[in-house]
Amino acid sequence: MPPVAFSDVTALTPDGPARFTVDVHPEWTIAGKPNGGYLTGLLGRAAAAVGPHEHPIAASAHFLRSPEPGPAVVSAELLRGGRSASQLRVQLRQDDQLCIEALVTTSVLDPAAKPYWADGAPAAGTASLEDSIRLPSLNPLGVKVAIMDQVDLRIEPDSFGFGRGEPSGRGELRGWLALPHGEAFDPFSLIYAVDAFPPATFDIELTGWVPTLELTAYVRAIPAPGPVRVLQKAQLIEGQRVDEACWVWDSTGRLVASGTQLAGIRLG
Amino acid sequence: MPPVAFSDVTALTPDGPARFTVDVHPEWTIAGKPNGGYLTGLLGRAAAAVGPHEHPIAASAHFLRSPEPGPAVVSAELLRGGRSASQLRVQLRQDDQLCIEALVTTSVLDPAAKPYWADGAPAAGTASLEDSIRLPSLNPLGVKVAIMDQVDLRIEPDSFGFGRGEPSGRGELRGWLALPHGEAFDPFSLIYAVDAFPPATFDIELTGWVPTLELTAYVRAIPAPGPVRVLQKAQLIEGQRVDEACWVWDSTGRLVASGTQLAGIRLG
Repeated sequence: MPPVAFSDVTALTPDGPARFTVDVHPEWTIAGKPNGGYLTGLLGRAAAAVGPHEHPIAASAHFLRSPEPGPAVVSAELLRGGRSASQLRVQLRQDDQLCIEALVTTSVLDPAAKPYWADGAPAAGTASLEDSIRLPSLNPLGVKVAIMDQVDLRIEPDSFGFGRGEPSGRGELRGWLALPHGEAFDPFSLIYAVDAFPPATFDIELTGWVPTLELTAYVRAIPAPGPVRVLQKAQLIEGQRVDEACWVWDSTGRLVASGTQLAGIRLG
Repeated sequence: MPPVAFSDVTALTPDGPARFTVDVHPEWTIAGKPNGGYLTGLLGRAAAAVGPHEHPIAASAHFLRSPEPGPAVVSAELLRGGRSASQLRVQLRQDDQLCIEALVTTSVLDPAAKPYWADGAPAAGTASLEDSIRLPSLNPLGVKVAIMDQVDLRIEPDSFGFGRGEPSGRGELRGWLALPHGEAFDPFSLIYAVDAFPPATFDIELTGWVPTLELTAYVRAIPAPGPVRVLQKAQLIEGQRVDEACWVWDSTGRLVASGTQLAGIRLG
């Protein structure tokens, strides 16, 4: 089966005021569970559809339970419609159970905006897309990561120790991400991008499922077409939880999104 | 007037099921506006009071409008009560207007937990508390920052360029934070700590009010008593917005909290 476009797997079918049905795609999954960034991008799309501003600029999602692939209901409530920014509460439910609640601040990103000061992010990777190693849909632990047959996710050789059984211990994964069919990134798919990479903890120790408890994404600019560079970085593993940070640069090297997440992990 | 304890300025008076009245303190303010981290810490306290777990571990607040000092109503709704973690939606209203909505994931932090891997955060500062420079309640632009007469916030000499009219351009403020009367930090005041410092953009260019649009805080451990070290770091200024990251270490040098925020700024 050919990969399905991000715009298709996040399509919203209106089903009443500020309410949509969605079809959580069975292939945008890790071990059968939908990717959390994919779902948060979908919630960002619902926020933009219901609110007066077209771009999510800050999205914070708390994950109550993982939805299954298949039909789900997304509803959005405008909390405040402002001049330059608006805030919405968005929920994803399945079988009448709340699975994810998110707060989304929306605004309009000016495509002509230029960075005023951009020295605060860590250095992006340097390896080319061609020199980086595409992740297969079977991970080193034998887990089926179906979403890797949808997107083209490549890890720089320097970060790929985990694939050779030799994690570097730095807790950093650098690489590239492209959407199916060369679809250009937009503010919705940038939310996905901040949760697209494997856990950066793979560069420390391989483990099973690392379920996201909370994901915050900031979308800072409209990206240029083409694949994005990503840095996924672990910060602290303690008490069976890890927090990670992520930075996303567009194909011109401009920082366009960043995010953090708190996740469960069977370490510590 | 002597400073007022954090536990006092975040006191909750029950006013119905899962509803509290609070008194937003007039001195925990910047130019008359309450500090956003202080208010988010207060919302974290309400989440812990209503939910089955005693510690907020992830709090994401979206700021709709700034409340004024004085009475306000805080309500919390349990979205899911789990075994190891729960999720709550918390709101702060004033005059029936929603000012802040936050999502809070709560859990129980084990005081005996030890870091399993802790190499991911930037380096903490090195200057001692005694060698650092206490911020006065009148900032270099002549703005009254009343909260600086409540807490003891000190900037390391290397980060204090902005106070001498010579910002370094690195966009980093390192220093120390102590609560009034030597009150020990707890998971609620750690949420405040990730938004306690001046905007790290002061180390680039001094500006007026930098209003927080979104604040996410992760509380990772029960801190040891004593002041905490803080690093506040700007990431990108673009389109009149900035995103910043913050790390907080307890007096033993252990990373205990981190956070990010997206804020408005009159630059770019």
